[in-house]
This record gives sequence, C-alpha cells and structure tokens, in this order.
Amino acid sequence: MADQPSRGLADVVAASTALSDIDGRAGRLFYRGYDIHELAGGATFEEIAYLLQRGSPPGAGDLAAYREELAKGRSLGALVRENLERVARSQSPMEAMRTFVSLASADDPDKDSNAPDANLRKAARLVAQQPLLVAAYHAARTNSPLVPADPGLATAANFLLQMRGEPATAREAEILDTCLVLHADHTMNASTFAARVCAATLSDMHSAIVAAIGTLRGPLHGGANEQVMLTLAQIRSQSPQDPVAAVAAEVRRRLGRGDKIMGFGHRVYKTEDPRATHLRELAGELAQSSGDETYYRMSRRMEEVVHAEKGLYPNVDFFAATVYHCLKIPTDLFTPVFSMSRMAGWTAHVMEQHADNRLIRPDSEYIGERGLTWTPLGQG
Amino acid sequence: MADQPSRGLADVVAASTALSDIDGRAGRLFYRGYDIHELAGGATFEEIAYLLQRGSPPGAGDLAAYREELAKGRSLGALVRENLERVARSQSPMEAMRTFVSLASADDPDKDSNAPDANLRKAARLVAQQPLLVAAYHAARTNSPLVPADPGLATAANFLLQMRGEPATAREAEILDTCLVLHADHTMNASTFAARVCAATLSDMHSAIVAAIGTLRGPLHGGANEQVMLTLAQIRSQSPQDPVAAVAAEVRRRLGRGDKIMGFGHRVYKTEDPRATHLRELAGELAQSSGDETYYRMSRRMEEVVHAEKGLYPNVDFFAATVYHCLKIPTDLFTPVFSMSRMAGWTAHVMEQHADNRLIRPDSEYIGERGLTWTPLGQG
Repeated sequence: MADQPSRGLADVVAASTALSDIDGRAGRLFYRGYDIHELAGGATFEEIAYLLQRGSPPGAGDLAAYREELAKGRSLGALVRENLERVARSQSPMEAMRTFVSLASADDPDKDSNAPDANLRKAARLVAQQPLLVAAYHAARTNSPLVPADPGLATAANFLLQMRGEPATAREAEILDTCLVLHADHTMNASTFAARVCAATLSDMHSAIVAAIGTLRGPLHGGANEQVMLTLAQIRSQSPQDPVAAVAAEVRRRLGRGDKIMGFGHRVYKTEDPRATHLRELAGELAQSSGDETYYRMSRRMEEVVHAEKGLYPNVDFFAATVYHCLKIPTDLFTPVFSMSRMAGWTAHVMEQHADNRLIRPDSEYIGERGLTWTPLGQG
Repeated sequence: MADQPSRGLADVVAASTALSDIDGRAGRLFYRGYDIHELAGGATFEEIAYLLQRGSPPGAGDLAAYREELAKGRSLGALVRENLERVARSQSPMEAMRTFVSLASADDPDKDSNAPDANLRKAARLVAQQPLLVAAYHAARTNSPLVPADPGLATAANFLLQMRGEPATAREAEILDTCLVLHADHTMNASTFAARVCAATLSDMHSAIVAAIGTLRGPLHGGANEQVMLTLAQIRSQSPQDPVAAVAAEVRRRLGRGDKIMGFGHRVYKTEDPRATHLRELAGELAQSSGDETYYRMSRRMEEVVHAEKGLYPNVDFFAATVYHCLKIPTDLFTPVFSMSRMAGWTAHVMEQHADNRLIRPDSEYIGERGLTWTPLGQG
C-alpha cells in the first residue's frame, strides 16, 4: 500500500462494483456490461433503473410492474408535504433536495430496515420521489399549483408535465429520458463514493442518499452543469450582438487568470466522454427545433477553444446544460435533474455496499507539528 | 498505485491532515501535536474546538471571545424552530440531527460563502448549535419545555442543564467535558472522510456536516455506543440476579454465532485505544458515586472476556456508554452526544479540505459481466 497520500485518491481502487465500468482511454462506459451507446436511445430510464437496482434487464412484465411501483411511489410523505412551502421559500434547490430526502425517511414504511428487500423498495421509492420533489419545489417557490402526476406517463414525461405545468412533446420527453439514461451511474464519482462511505458504516439508505445529494451539489461535481449555463448566459448578455464570436476571448481571459472552465475534462476519460457525444447531438437537435441555436453554437465554439488551449474534452455536464435549457428547465434546477437520474445509481451502490460490506476508513498522513506540550490556561 | 481494490481503503493514505495523528502501535492520539493524555482533564472542549478549527491553542482573551461566540450561537434558526416538534415526533435522534442541520443552513448568515472567514463562523455556529439541537429534540419529544441556555455555562454544563432540565453537578459537567475532548477528532474516521469527500466537490459546510451525521449514525461507527448500552441492558434484564456473571456466557454465545461485539477493536489501534483508558476511569468514578456499579462491573467483565476470546481491546465507544448512562443521558442520545463533540473535528476537516482542495474521486474494479448486447423490449 502507498505510504504517500494519493491526492484525491486518483487511480486508487477503492471498491469493487458490478454496476458500471469505464474505459477511460477508449472513452467507453458500460452499465452492468451494456455499452452506453446501445442504451442511449435504446433503453428507457425505467429499464436502466431496474437494471442497476435489480441486476438484469427487466422483461416486459417486470418493467410494467416496476413502472407501476414508481407511479405509486410518486407521492410525498406527510413530513415533506408539511414543510414543502417553507423549505422552498428559504432553501436553494439542492439544499432543499437534501432537506426533503432527510425529512422523507420519516414516512418511509421501510425506514427501520437495511434488509435487501426493504432496500429495494426504498430504492424504487427514492427514484420515484426525486422528480416529484424537484417539480413540487419549483411549484411551491413560484406559488403555482402542482399539476397532478399522470400515472400513465414515464418518469421523464411526467416530470416535464409537473415541472412545466403543461405536457411536453413526445420528442422532448424522449430526449430527457435519454439524458436520465446517460446520467444514471458512473462508477466511483464523488457523490456515489460519499454514499458508499456512509452506507459502509451500515447506516441507512436515506442517510447515504442525503450524503450523495450534498456532495453532488458541489461545483466540481453535479453543480457544474448549472455553472456551464451561467457562463454561457453571461457571455451572451455581455456580447448580445455576436455572442459566438465573444466566446474565444472570454475563455482565454478566464484560462489566463487560472480559472477552471466548467464542463470540460474528467479525471477518468482521456478522450471524449461517450455521454457528451450523445448530449451534443441532442443539444443540436433541440436548438434547431427551438429556432434559437445561439447557445448551441456558443457551446460548439467553446468546445473548440478549450480543446485548442487546454486539450480538454467536454464532459457530461457541458452539453447537458444546453439540452436542459432548451427543455425549458430553470438553470438552478439542472443539478436537481441530475440527481433524479443518479438516484438510480446511488441506490444501487448502497445496496451493493450493504451486500458485501466493509467499513471504508482510510489512513491519513500527518503533516502538522509534533511533540507539543499543552499548557493549561492560567499556568502559561 | 494499487490495481487491486483495498477493501475499505484499509492502510491507504487518502489525505494529509494537520488536525490529528494516531500512533496505532503505541496506542497514542494527538490533536495538532498535543497528546490526548495531556488534553483529557487538562483542556476544555472549547479550547479543543478552538485548537482544531483555528490551528493553535487560544490565549485567555481568545478563549473568552470564542466562548462568547459559542454562547451567542446557541439559538435555532426559524426553519428549525418551526419544524422542531414535528421532526422530533417522527424521526429518530440521528435522523432528526441530519434533518435539523440540513434545515439550519437556511438561516445561517454565511450560507452562500465557502470563504475561510465565513467557514470559521459557520464552524463555530455548528459547534454551538449541536448540543442545543439534541436538548431541544429531547424536550420536544417528551413534551417538556426547553430550559433556556445559561450563557455563563460552557458547552458540557449547559447541555446537561438543557437536556436534563436541571443543573448538573460540577463534576458531572467536567466529566462530560472530558468526553467531548476525547471524541473531538480522530483522523480519517468514516464520518470525517464522508465530510471531506463532500467538501472536496467544493460543496458547502452544511452539506458536508449532514453527510457526516448520516455516516456517524451507522452501527459500525458512532452508532456503536448505543449498541454497547443496549447489549449491557439486555444482559442485565435477562439475568437480573447476577448480570456480571452472565456476561461471559452471553459474549461467547454471540461470538459463537459470528456476531460482532460492539465497542471492541479498531482498524487503527493495535493496542488499547488511549481514549478508552480515560473513559474506563471516568466510568468507574461515576458508577461508584452513583451507588450502582453493575454496568461498570459488567463492562469490566466483558472487556476481560472479549480480550481472552478475540484479543480485542475496548474502543472509544465501549466505556462511553457507561459514562453517558451514569450522566442520565437517554441511550438513544449517545450517538447525538458523540456528534456534539465530533462537530469540532468535522468542521475543521472541511476547512482543511477547502484550503488545499482536490476532488476525491477514486477508481473502482469492475467485477460484473462484460460485452452484453442490449435487446430493446419488443425485439427480444
């Protein structure tokens, strides 16, 4: 074992998993052995959540039952309902998600059990509940009534209905569904790892998910998609005449002062993130059909400039920003939308951790002073 | 770097820290270079929280100012106050602590900043607030009025006053204060590590602390002190005539069926945990003065038997159980009391992580199937 610290645990194998696999050199991602390129557009989010949580793809009957379980799970417990408006008024979206899931354990019928069947039911409820929490939060803060869930709709279509207050087109729902598929799991990303560190003390599913949500919030993780949009919007507002032309100078200015450009680079991928390939295409399609391709063209230009200047490729967050913007999702809900999808992976990782557990307790290297003598106050 | 997974990251150096250091072979623990044996009984919890959060021991003036800052911080924000009774009625103590701290960010004046000075203020408020949250929770669930805080009292004495509804003796307060000193930090324990994984995404102090609380909850971590007490109480109720004599058979029965005996063994210490040395002495003193030495004598016997059978030493959780019981702290508040103390270490680690940050994002080893082909439903 290393005696020197591996800063950020880069390249340290912290756990075994059968959930996802990354080939960083080739730019490939697999969920339980299935290539993400087959799954994007070929599988629905419900199939992927089932695959991750239960181990193999659902048959038609399994999928119908799982979809029904999710539709039934689209309800808020009493403690969340009672607090919805107050929390929505006083907490930002990811703070509120953290609070809501912490409150939600109170009304979960399996709250006191870590048994595999109880965890499977909690996992399905958490996947069902998260989009509803995002939509209900948005309705509460905008003083709008929450449109009732449509039990006939799948996760993506129902979320767009409840969040926007009106039905999405079939293609919009398909595109969001593909986004949810693309974000569902990604090996030991920071939020998933936080969930596993928590679960490895044999703490409960909700505690692990709350840890993951707080971790996803960080701008070096899930918070990046929101930062991407804010950067694009800032450049556009500063150079409304020709925002695409303004991208290069602004990127170089930021790089020059040592800023990170959000949405680029990934510790694991040495080439293009395979998820970015799909998101770029979806962003282009949505931009074209929306009639305003400005953000898309700005994004393509930014991609060129960052690659030329730093050799970095866009990651999953970069084109997701334009996609979500075109889907009329408010910018500060981008990270909560990420959490709707990653909930499938988080819950599956908690169950995988519990199934073959060992406490995650690393060492540290001490770099402070040694051999000091404590002088009680008054005797110094 | 290792290609094989280090199960539980045992012996992997995950971070550098100047906060605490363990010599596992010699059974020694240091906070910022000061030996725990000097600090236990020689320093107060406020001095230790200051030392951990600010880097060096306070002078008399610093300490007075810090104590005043803590006394002022003993107040609950509006969002917590409004929810106190509902949460206390429907969530267990550590679930409630997780929820309360998540709610509390709403009313923290520094909530939107990760700047060092803002984090220092949040860190002091979190240390001040946690004992109040525990006491307020207990008052709410027992339909008792919460005794007002006494700004002249230090953390331990004020907590006992508010939690029990009547003042503690000076010696009781001193003993709890020493317990808080002993639990304040412990390198990369699981909850601290979870807090650092969260903070390393540049997420905020409250998110990191919420992650830590959920992680401390687990029975393989902070939850162990409660489990110790439940085990002792169970043996005593089963063998009320001679519970001390019943300990050996029960321990052997549990070990025989492969159960873990909570409160024994530690990944890092190969000899006695130095904190256990102090807690054993305090447990003996309190038991003697209470006039009921049963639990203390049962604990000593359990210590003998577990050492004879498994070669394991008691850890920090083992005698803490008897001490807290003698201090009339309800058993299900033992882990929340641990959180009151560890809050000093958690907050200091978040600041240390932010000060020299790198995303904590390990690798994983893939152990699932490979090369599967996805068959869209209806085409299978």
